[in-house]
Amino acid sequence: MSIVKQQKWWGWGEEGISFSFADKPKFAPFVLDKLDVDITIPAPTVREFSTLDVPTSQLGDDLRQKFVDALGADYVVDDDEVRVVHAFGRGVRDLVRVRRGELGRVPDVVLYPADEEQVIAIVDAAVAANAVLIPYGGGSNIVGALEALPDETRTVVSVNLGRMNRVLEIDADSGLARIQAGVLGPDMEVQLNAQGWTMGHFPDSFMWSTLGGWIATRSSGMQSDKYGDIADITRGLRMVMTDQVLVLRPLPSSSSGPSVREIVLGSEGRLGIITEAWVNVHRTPQVRQIQAYFFPDYYSGLRAMEEISASDAAPTITRVSDANETEFSMANGKKSSTIGHLLNRAIQEVMTRKGWDLKKICVSFIGFEGSAVHVRYEKMLVGKIVSRNGGMGVGTGPGALYDQKKFDIPYIRDFLLDRGIPADVSETSTPWSGLRQMYDNTRAAAQRAFDEAGVKGFIMCHLSHSYHSGACQYFTFAINDSSEHNMESYDRVKQAIQQSFMDNGGTVSHHHGVGEEHSPWMDQDISPAGVFIQRTLFEGVDPGQNFNPGKVLHDGIPGVSSNSVQPE
Amino acid sequence: MSIVKQQKWWGWGEEGISFSFADKPKFAPFVLDKLDVDITIPAPTVREFSTLDVPTSQLGDDLRQKFVDALGADYVVDDDEVRVVHAFGRGVRDLVRVRRGELGRVPDVVLYPADEEQVIAIVDAAVAANAVLIPYGGGSNIVGALEALPDETRTVVSVNLGRMNRVLEIDADSGLARIQAGVLGPDMEVQLNAQGWTMGHFPDSFMWSTLGGWIATRSSGMQSDKYGDIADITRGLRMVMTDQVLVLRPLPSSSSGPSVREIVLGSEGRLGIITEAWVNVHRTPQVRQIQAYFFPDYYSGLRAMEEISASDAAPTITRVSDANETEFSMANGKKSSTIGHLLNRAIQEVMTRKGWDLKKICVSFIGFEGSAVHVRYEKMLVGKIVSRNGGMGVGTGPGALYDQKKFDIPYIRDFLLDRGIPADVSETSTPWSGLRQMYDNTRAAAQRAFDEAGVKGFIMCHLSHSYHSGACQYFTFAINDSSEHNMESYDRVKQAIQQSFMDNGGTVSHHHGVGEEHSPWMDQDISPAGVFIQRTLFEGVDPGQNFNPGKVLHDGIPGVSSNSVQPE
Repeated sequence: MSIVKQQKWWGWGEEGISFSFADKPKFAPFVLDKLDVDITIPAPTVREFSTLDVPTSQLGDDLRQKFVDALGADYVVDDDEVRVVHAFGRGVRDLVRVRRGELGRVPDVVLYPADEEQVIAIVDAAVAANAVLIPYGGGSNIVGALEALPDETRTVVSVNLGRMNRVLEIDADSGLARIQAGVLGPDMEVQLNAQGWTMGHFPDSFMWSTLGGWIATRSSGMQSDKYGDIADITRGLRMVMTDQVLVLRPLPSSSSGPSVREIVLGSEGRLGIITEAWVNVHRTPQVRQIQAYFFPDYYSGLRAMEEISASDAAPTITRVSDANETEFSMANGKKSSTIGHLLNRAIQEVMTRKGWDLKKICVSFIGFEGSAVHVRYEKMLVGKIVSRNGGMGVGTGPGALYDQKKFDIPYIRDFLLDRGIPADVSETSTPWSGLRQMYDNTRAAAQRAFDEAGVKGFIMCHLSHSYHSGACQYFTFAINDSSEHNMESYDRVKQAIQQSFMDNGGTVSHHHGVGEEHSPWMDQDISPAGVFIQRTLFEGVDPGQNFNPGKVLHDGIPGVSSNSVQPE
Repeated sequence: MSIVKQQKWWGWGEEGISFSFADKPKFAPFVLDKLDVDITIPAPTVREFSTLDVPTSQLGDDLRQKFVDALGADYVVDDDEVRVVHAFGRGVRDLVRVRRGELGRVPDVVLYPADEEQVIAIVDAAVAANAVLIPYGGGSNIVGALEALPDETRTVVSVNLGRMNRVLEIDADSGLARIQAGVLGPDMEVQLNAQGWTMGHFPDSFMWSTLGGWIATRSSGMQSDKYGDIADITRGLRMVMTDQVLVLRPLPSSSSGPSVREIVLGSEGRLGIITEAWVNVHRTPQVRQIQAYFFPDYYSGLRAMEEISASDAAPTITRVSDANETEFSMANGKKSSTIGHLLNRAIQEVMTRKGWDLKKICVSFIGFEGSAVHVRYEKMLVGKIVSRNGGMGVGTGPGALYDQKKFDIPYIRDFLLDRGIPADVSETSTPWSGLRQMYDNTRAAAQRAFDEAGVKGFIMCHLSHSYHSGACQYFTFAINDSSEHNMESYDRVKQAIQQSFMDNGGTVSHHHGVGEEHSPWMDQDISPAGVFIQRTLFEGVDPGQNFNPGKVLHDGIPGVSSNSVQPE
C-alpha cells in the first residue's frame, strides 16, 4: 500500500485499469489498416518488477536522519518499486526504458512531506548536503522533467507532494481558492464541487496530475478557452527556495516589475518547490453542454474556429479533429450508442447529399456554459459560423461521450505499446494564419521520418485550444516498431515534428512544458537571448544546481551529455 | 521644432493646450469647498526656461562621434530644453522639481534612432563606453522611471524612440499587428483604424504614451476588461540587449519555461530597449456604447461590478466612481449638455423618491461592444445586475462625454498645480473580498496624512478595471500646499496610501509600474524572495548596470541613497 495514490511502475494509471477493445469492433481493423499490427494477438506480459536491477539507494545516514527527523520514518521511503515509480514521468520513452530495465539515475529516496514546514526542512537539509531535489506530483510528465540527470553523482531526492492535497480555503466573493500543490485533479475538483465550485482546468493528464505540476509546466486544460490556461488561473502562490519562501499574494493583476508569478509558472522545479497556490474558481454553471459538429474537411473546421475566436461568442471548448483523428474516434467507439454510432445512416445520407467525401469528414466539439439563455445565445452565434463554413451540428450525444472518455487516451497508448506500437503526442501553438501550413508541413515531416526510419506510421491531429490570435494543434503519432531500436525511430519522428514546429512559426510546446525532451529547441523558440535570460535566472537563483537541474535548459550543467532527442 | 512630438518642459502635453474652467460654473466653487483654494485668482506664470540652470552635457567626443556615425548629427541632440524634457516623466513631483529648477541628473544627450539597427549601434557604443541608457517613449511616466539616478557619474543617454512610430504589418487572419515601440497611442490607432482595426488599449496617458512604454510598465487601458492588459495584448516582441537581440515570435500561448515575454513586460528598461512588438488587434466593432448608471452609494456599485464579473456578461469597461469623484465629475461638467447636466430634475426626482442621499450617489460607466444584438443582450444582463443592486441606468449621453474627455485629467492636474494644489494618483488591485476594506482604510490613511501634514486634502476613487477575482481601485488625491515644503506633505500622503495598499492585500501598482517611486514597497508586494528573483535577473542580465539602473529595485546600485518616498 503506497502512501499516496501511485501509478503502475510500468505504465499509466493504477494497477487493474487498462484499455480493452472487446466492445469496439472497429478498433482492431483500424489498427491493422493503419499500422499493420494485429492487436488481437495477445501481447507479451510485462516483466515482473523483481526482475529489474534497481540500483541501491545512495542516501547517506546523516541526510536520512535529517529527513526522518523532519517527516517521521514512515515518510522517508527507499523501497525499490517506489523509487522506480519516481524515476520517470509517463512519456512513451519512459515506459520503454523502464520496461527494458534501463532505469537511469533512480532517486535515492522519496519523501512525502505533509506541509510547507516539512518542505522547508527537506530543502534546508538537502541543499546543505548538496543533494538534488526533484518535486513530484502525479508523475504524468511526458517531457522528461521528473528524471535525474543520468550522470548525477549527488544524492537524488524525489519530493512527492501527494499528502499536501487539500483545498485550504475558498474566498467566495473573489472566486479564489487556496489549494495545496500536491492535490490530484479529481481530488481537487471533488473538494471544490462539494462547495459548489470548479476550477475548470481539465488537462488530458487530469487523473494523474496535480496543481503544482500544472503550475510548474504551464499547463492548459480542455476548457481553457473559457477558464484560461493555468497561467491565467494562478493568481498567487508559495514556493520554498533555498533559505527563503516566495510568497505571492492573490492579485487579479499587477505592474510590479517583471512578473515573478510568470517566472514560477513553467519553472519545472528549477527555482524551488511550489507548496500551494491561490487559483481562480468558478460557480459550477447552470448549463454545461458539448455540442458535436461535422465539417467536410479539416480546413473548413479551422476556418470556423478562427471565425468563432473573432466573434462575439466565447465557447468553453473549441476542438476540431482532422480526418485521421475522426476516423480513430469512430474506430474507438463502442458497439452501441457511441461516437462510432454517431454517423448513423440519416446523417451519412445528409453528408452524401451535400457531396461530402466521408473519408475526409472532421468531427468538432464545442462547449458552452452559463445560464440556459446564455448557452442558447452562444450556440446560435456558433451555429451560424459553423454553417457558413459548411459544417453541420449533430447534437450533444457525441459530446457527452467525449466528455466521459476524454481521460482514457493514455490507457490506449499503453495498450498499443504492449503490442509494439510506440505512440506519443506533440503540441504547438501558432497564429491563425499559420495553422494550415503547420498542419500540412508537420504531417509531411512525420511521414518523411516514418519513411526514413523504415517504419509504418500514423499521425493525427486536432485543434485543441483557441485564442484571439491563434490556436494549439495537438498531434498524436504512432509507429509500428517493436524492435530494440524503436526509440531511434521514435526520436527521428519526434525530432521531425518538433523541428517542423520551429520551422513553421510554432512554439516548442503549448502546454506540456520543456523538461529534457524539448530543451534542444529552446534556442529556436525563444531565441538565444531568451535562453540567456532563463539561464541567468536559473543559475542566479540556484547557483548550486540543487533544484531539478538540467530541465528546460541543459546549459551550464557540467558533465551532462546531449539530450536524447536533438535538432538536426 | 522638435524632432518628434514633445511635451512642455514644465507640464503635461503640448504647449498651447491647457485646462480652462471658463464654461464650468461649478468647478471653482467645488475646489474652494474641498481645498480652500480660490482658483479664480490668476496663477503665477511659469518661469522662463532661460532662467533654469541646466547642467552642461558631459557627453564625451568619442561617444558623440559614435552616435553621430550611427544616427546622423541631426538625431544626436544636446539642446538644453530637449535634455530637460527628457530628464523627467510627468508625475507631480517631476513638475514641481522642474519648475523649481531642481533638475537632478539631466541626460547628457538625447538620441532619436530611426530603426532597430540604429538602436543596436547606440547600445553597442553606450555599453562599450559604460554609459547609462534610458529608453524614452511619450514621457508620461509618473513613477520616476525616466530619470537618471541623482548621483550617476557616468554618461546618461536618453533614447527617444519617437521616430520608430509605424505599424509595420497586420496579420488579418490572426488579428495581430507588428508595431514599432515608439509610436504614440493616437498615431498607432490612426494607422490601425485606417485598415479597420483597433488595439483597444486606452490608458489615461494614451495621448502621451507609447507601445514600448506600455510594455515596459505593464500598462492597462480603459477597455482592458475586454481587450486585456498590455501583458495579454503583447504576443511577441524584439528587445535590444548587450550584444544580442531578444526575438519572441508572436504566439497565442506557450509552455516554454518561465515566460520571457512576461519578464520583459514590466522590465522598465532594465533588461534592454524594446524596439517592436506583435500585438493583438481587433476589427473595430459594429456597435460601441458606454452606458451610464447611478448607484445610491459606492458599496452598491462595487457589488454590482463584482456580480457582473461572475456573470455571463463581458462588458468592455466597468467603472464606478465614489461619491467624491462623482461630485468632481459633475463640477467638471460644462454649463450645457454635460455630465453636470446629467442630473437633470427628472432624474433627481426619481432618486429622491427612491430615498437616495444625493450627496452619496455614485456614477458608473459600463462599456459594450459587438454586434447590435450582442450589445443589446449584454446590456440586458448588466441592467438586471445593476437593478438588483439598487442602481439605475441613465443612458449613453454621459458615457459618450466621458469617452471624449477621458484624456483631459492631466491638464486639470497641471492647472491645479499652478494654483498651489499638488495632485497625484495611486492605484492598486485586490481580490473582490478586499475592495471595501481597501477603500475605507486607504481613505482613512490619506485623511490621517493630511492631518499630520497640516494641510487640507481631498481624495476620490473609482473602480477602473474588473477581473474574475478582483478589481483595480484608482485613487486621486490633492492637497492645498503651495509651500516650499509641499513635497514633504505630498510624500506623507503618497506614503500613507501606498502603505495602505500593502496593509490591505493590494499590489504596489496595478498599471503605473514601479519606477523609483514605488520601489520601496516591493519587498512587501512580492516578498523578499520575489525581490531576490528580480534582482538576480537584473544583475545577471545587465551586470554593468547600463540599462536604466535603479528602477523597479534599488538594491545593488552602489552609491544610491534612499528613495524620495519611503515606507515608515
